[in-house]
Amino acid sequence: MTATTMRSKGERTKDLILTTAISMFQKMGYESTTMRAIALASGVALGNAYYYFQSKEHLVLALYERTLNDQWAACKPVLLSSRSMKKRLAGVLHAQLGALTPYREVLHSLFRFGADPTSPLSPFAPESAAIREGAKGLFQNVVAGSQEKISTDIGDALPYCLWLYHMGIVFFWLHDSSTGQNKTTKLIDLTSDLIVSFILLNSLPLFKPFRRTLLKLIEEFRLDNAA
Amino acid sequence: MTATTMRSKGERTKDLILTTAISMFQKMGYESTTMRAIALASGVALGNAYYYFQSKEHLVLALYERTLNDQWAACKPVLLSSRSMKKRLAGVLHAQLGALTPYREVLHSLFRFGADPTSPLSPFAPESAAIREGAKGLFQNVVAGSQEKISTDIGDALPYCLWLYHMGIVFFWLHDSSTGQNKTTKLIDLTSDLIVSFILLNSLPLFKPFRRTLLKLIEEFRLDNAA
Repeated sequence: MTATTMRSKGERTKDLILTTAISMFQKMGYESTTMRAIALASGVALGNAYYYFQSKEHLVLALYERTLNDQWAACKPVLLSSRSMKKRLAGVLHAQLGALTPYREVLHSLFRFGADPTSPLSPFAPESAAIREGAKGLFQNVVAGSQEKISTDIGDALPYCLWLYHMGIVFFWLHDSSTGQNKTTKLIDLTSDLIVSFILLNSLPLFKPFRRTLLKLIEEFRLDNAA
Repeated sequence: MTATTMRSKGERTKDLILTTAISMFQKMGYESTTMRAIALASGVALGNAYYYFQSKEHLVLALYERTLNDQWAACKPVLLSSRSMKKRLAGVLHAQLGALTPYREVLHSLFRFGADPTSPLSPFAPESAAIREGAKGLFQNVVAGSQEKISTDIGDALPYCLWLYHMGIVFFWLHDSSTGQNKTTKLIDLTSDLIVSFILLNSLPLFKPFRRTLLKLIEEFRLDNAA
């Protein structure tokens, strides 16, 4: 057996454990699912499961990472197809939720942990910094590839704010019981339009004092543990 | 015994049960506290406790109502002392949190239920409609008593949005571990300033299309189960 196939077997085992865990979290709830039960259902030894994932929290972080990769893949065509900021923002949000759809139930069940900012499962926790940065990168790309001119002082804070907005959309979508989550689709269309209008209005000279206070607020109250 | 003293004894018993329940929710958590334990600790028969509060949820709603009354009392001097919208808004928020301080711990422990919009303990539940209306009334008063002119089409949606903003502030405050919750104080000062600036800018003719989309959004996505 070569090193390459060894690695690939390890990756496959890791994937299997994660897929099993996601399905168990979904069926039995996160709290009731033990590492022992996950290892058993995956057909791997408990020590082996712990080798790949030090704790249940690590499994959740791996789930977040998997959904992030799926989101990037789904957003790529959108980001290549238009230079209008409104179309890019709305398109990315729709594509993200499309990619999250298979995980909707399990994310919903995990959400109550995420709502507590001190939990390592919170989207604002230091533990999930890398995933957060990856998700913010999507919005950085939305802005950077747009044809619209925005005032340069907004630049750095904007991807963060769009990421925060996207967290709100995901929260709404997780609780949206309308057919096919149609209400969320409408919410995205209305709010993305408003937000881009707001960004553009904010770049007008009239807005300078307002923009300054807003940037001060964002800087002082960033929730993403950025430097 | 006259009808009046009968009633007043009833009110006293009801108050005693509520105060006992709040303290037990705080010490042992909402889920671990039973109606039986509350009745026992209050020195009343279980049937008597159920006569006043049909369920634990009713006790939480009564707690919300008590905090609302305390908030109105604390805000009254603020609303009488200034006609500046910024001062009124910031003053009301500071006064509200002051009134909520004795309940901070128990509200924090109840929050995770409130984060699920389908829970009767959610601030958006039909069960808490009356309390929500009472809280929105405070923001109605903030706007109505201000000297600033705002465009009339914003009118109805504004108290609702300010109430939603206040819910965000309360959420932040519940999780604020800075000394004396000083970060929340700063957040109120920065955001109330920004929000009033935003309201006033929104009243400019330049903003008409933006304002229209914003009002449409608010109307379609109100979370407060208003008519």
